[in-house]
Amino acid sequence: MSKPTPISGFPEWAPPQRMIEQYVVDRIRNTFELYGFAPLETRAVEPLDQLLRKGETSKEVYLISRLQEEGAPPSGEGALGLHFDLTVPFARYVLENAGRLQFPFRRYQIQKVWRGERPQEGRYREFLQADIDIVDRDTLSSHHEAEIPLVLGDALGGLPLGGSDGRLPILVQVNNRKILEGFYRGLGLADPLAALRAVDRLDRIGPDRVAALLAETAGATEAQAKACLALAEIAAPDPSFAEAVQALGVTDPLLDEGLAELVAVMENAVAHAPGLCVADLRIARGLDYYTGTVYETQLRGYERFGSVSSGGRYDNLASDGNARFPGVGISIGVTRLLGLLFGAGALSISRSVPTCVLVALADEERRPESNRIADALRRRGIPTEVSPSAAKYGKQIRYAERRGIPYVWFPGVDGIGDEVKDIRSGEQVGAVPEVWQPPAADLRPTIA
Amino acid sequence: MSKPTPISGFPEWAPPQRMIEQYVVDRIRNTFELYGFAPLETRAVEPLDQLLRKGETSKEVYLISRLQEEGAPPSGEGALGLHFDLTVPFARYVLENAGRLQFPFRRYQIQKVWRGERPQEGRYREFLQADIDIVDRDTLSSHHEAEIPLVLGDALGGLPLGGSDGRLPILVQVNNRKILEGFYRGLGLADPLAALRAVDRLDRIGPDRVAALLAETAGATEAQAKACLALAEIAAPDPSFAEAVQALGVTDPLLDEGLAELVAVMENAVAHAPGLCVADLRIARGLDYYTGTVYETQLRGYERFGSVSSGGRYDNLASDGNARFPGVGISIGVTRLLGLLFGAGALSISRSVPTCVLVALADEERRPESNRIADALRRRGIPTEVSPSAAKYGKQIRYAERRGIPYVWFPGVDGIGDEVKDIRSGEQVGAVPEVWQPPAADLRPTIA
Repeated sequence: MSKPTPISGFPEWAPPQRMIEQYVVDRIRNTFELYGFAPLETRAVEPLDQLLRKGETSKEVYLISRLQEEGAPPSGEGALGLHFDLTVPFARYVLENAGRLQFPFRRYQIQKVWRGERPQEGRYREFLQADIDIVDRDTLSSHHEAEIPLVLGDALGGLPLGGSDGRLPILVQVNNRKILEGFYRGLGLADPLAALRAVDRLDRIGPDRVAALLAETAGATEAQAKACLALAEIAAPDPSFAEAVQALGVTDPLLDEGLAELVAVMENAVAHAPGLCVADLRIARGLDYYTGTVYETQLRGYERFGSVSSGGRYDNLASDGNARFPGVGISIGVTRLLGLLFGAGALSISRSVPTCVLVALADEERRPESNRIADALRRRGIPTEVSPSAAKYGKQIRYAERRGIPYVWFPGVDGIGDEVKDIRSGEQVGAVPEVWQPPAADLRPTIA
Repeated sequence: MSKPTPISGFPEWAPPQRMIEQYVVDRIRNTFELYGFAPLETRAVEPLDQLLRKGETSKEVYLISRLQEEGAPPSGEGALGLHFDLTVPFARYVLENAGRLQFPFRRYQIQKVWRGERPQEGRYREFLQADIDIVDRDTLSSHHEAEIPLVLGDALGGLPLGGSDGRLPILVQVNNRKILEGFYRGLGLADPLAALRAVDRLDRIGPDRVAALLAETAGATEAQAKACLALAEIAAPDPSFAEAVQALGVTDPLLDEGLAELVAVMENAVAHAPGLCVADLRIARGLDYYTGTVYETQLRGYERFGSVSSGGRYDNLASDGNARFPGVGISIGVTRLLGLLFGAGALSISRSVPTCVLVALADEERRPESNRIADALRRRGIPTEVSPSAAKYGKQIRYAERRGIPYVWFPGVDGIGDEVKDIRSGEQVGAVPEVWQPPAADLRPTIA
């Protein structure tokens, strides 16, 4: 077997990075549960026709086929593909199980997703996402839209991963599609969606080309294009954005509805997490299915990499003709976030294994004694290994050193009791496995 | 969109079941870390030629292909398939990263795997596995083979999931391939592997047909077949099995080596976890790559469903011509285990959401006040939701009841302080969100 090589777009973290990822995922999950979201995992595959309902992503889908079925076209009837996000499978799950669920239904879902995109920095073909959504039957109160960014702020903002105050510095940009559509309609544009798509490209192509696009695809006059761009310039860390919008002199009932909803989101954000959110009127989210509040999230200092978490309100994703299930949610790109932070060297962990104590071995015949000591330590929750060989003690200590294991335990001999050595300081003290306790900071690997 | 339907072989647990699964996985993971295993996740896909190295499973592989690449044969050069276990990807990972790893390398891996098999009870097309392996470079000491079942015993045996003592009743059946091959060789059979494959079918086809198969495929005489079956009859909960084997009068150096190794495994098991293991000489594990100790695990009372965890020692799975990486490991079939227990109605959880407290809402205008209370409770680690609507209190209490949320919090009004009601007992007491603490048993959902 020749030496295997990585596959582009399918990252594999080394164990120390995987420990950091687990820490981040545990923290996210714990936050989601503190807000009462229940866990769900859906299967990795969906019927291809489900995945293609949103035309935009059709090119990115991975199809699956059974090897012995070769010859059958994998995209024919009954074809299955790997999910490319967790929202489409969740909408399908809600429809399938509506009779068994309690609404409003709050769920979180942390799973890998797959996209056949060309890999590049921050973009993968296999990556981990962490989603929350709240769906209700028929109608969904808009106050849920104000809750979502707070959950995100607690989940990510609380991570001790950089930032001048030791916390992950995130900024949630919030907007409302009703403001954009209402404003464009109030301006007299016949195709508000075309205008929205044009403005959505502002960051990539700049104001001049957006103005040209507005004229071309939405039939905007110069004055209308200017007003669209003026709206997109508005941003504020509090509800004051609404006055700036009203000062543009456009009126429309949908615009008023959107302004009221975004004001409520920003009031709630200012009350509970000042500095977390900014009302940013240029955020549009290209995906067709958002109908109200939309979110994007920048990691301060890493803005060039784009959003690490995004989502919004959707009213038409799950509907079976009889019932409609409007929802709101957000998705954290865990792999993207960690890829950026690993790439910047912003994260490290205190050791490469969970082990806190290595029990040394005087000779192979005395392995049962070392096993008993390890057993006693583990029963008290202390991660412990026994030395794999009865090499010289210096070599056993190097085994621990190379992995960052902080303590080596020496079983007693000839009437002398056990001793444990902190191999960082060299300090060695007498110890009893049923009693000895490492400092709390040494029990598990810590992240810096 | 018409109502979607399940896909056979791709189970989806409801949120309460998913909470149980998470509990089980957390417990397994914690045990693996207590023994110093470091976490790893490998990508879901492997090159098809890697997956097909073990011919036996070739029919079960799912191929993936990008939708826009349709037409290209998915099984051609560079083809990718979904992994069908975690051992083959791990062996590949070790070869790819050998220069960066410290040996012996202890890792655990908990991931979904996919097999295109016909679904049936206890057999899925997508399922979760939890694996540990220890690999070393060039040589691997056999004492590691004695450690593996103890990790399994702690990980599964400690689960409070049934059993007369409230613990999951598992029995690890252990054997050693060297005993079987050495015994058959010592008997004078020219093709020990053919004999092994025949005896491996004992449970399915019975002794008479195994005897016929031994004659047919391994050229066994009647006396040789009888000896093979006599060996397979031996089982003991301690090292005494060795005397029973020796009493059959067959001698061979490989047989002696295997007996010594299995005696060591059983001595260690009796010392640390009496009753956990049985030396069962009929266990063979059909897969070609095992070369020493092999494990299977029965759930007592559910033996008809087969093994819920299996593995063994392998010497030839990872080798790149220069170096060899022998290993030993075991895999827990988490989905199979839970599927059996869910199917038997053996598991339940105290509520269907993580939420401990529902904060009631007097009217929609006072939502900020209820949000503040929820915030204070969450900051102290108490999972809390705010009522989705300011319906009558009776309706809000029913919202909690339907989900099993034990407490409803009533914000104070008109100078009267907050009160919290245990809706199971009806008891209602004054409370302050910065101080009130639920009983520990109510903080998180509990499993029964």
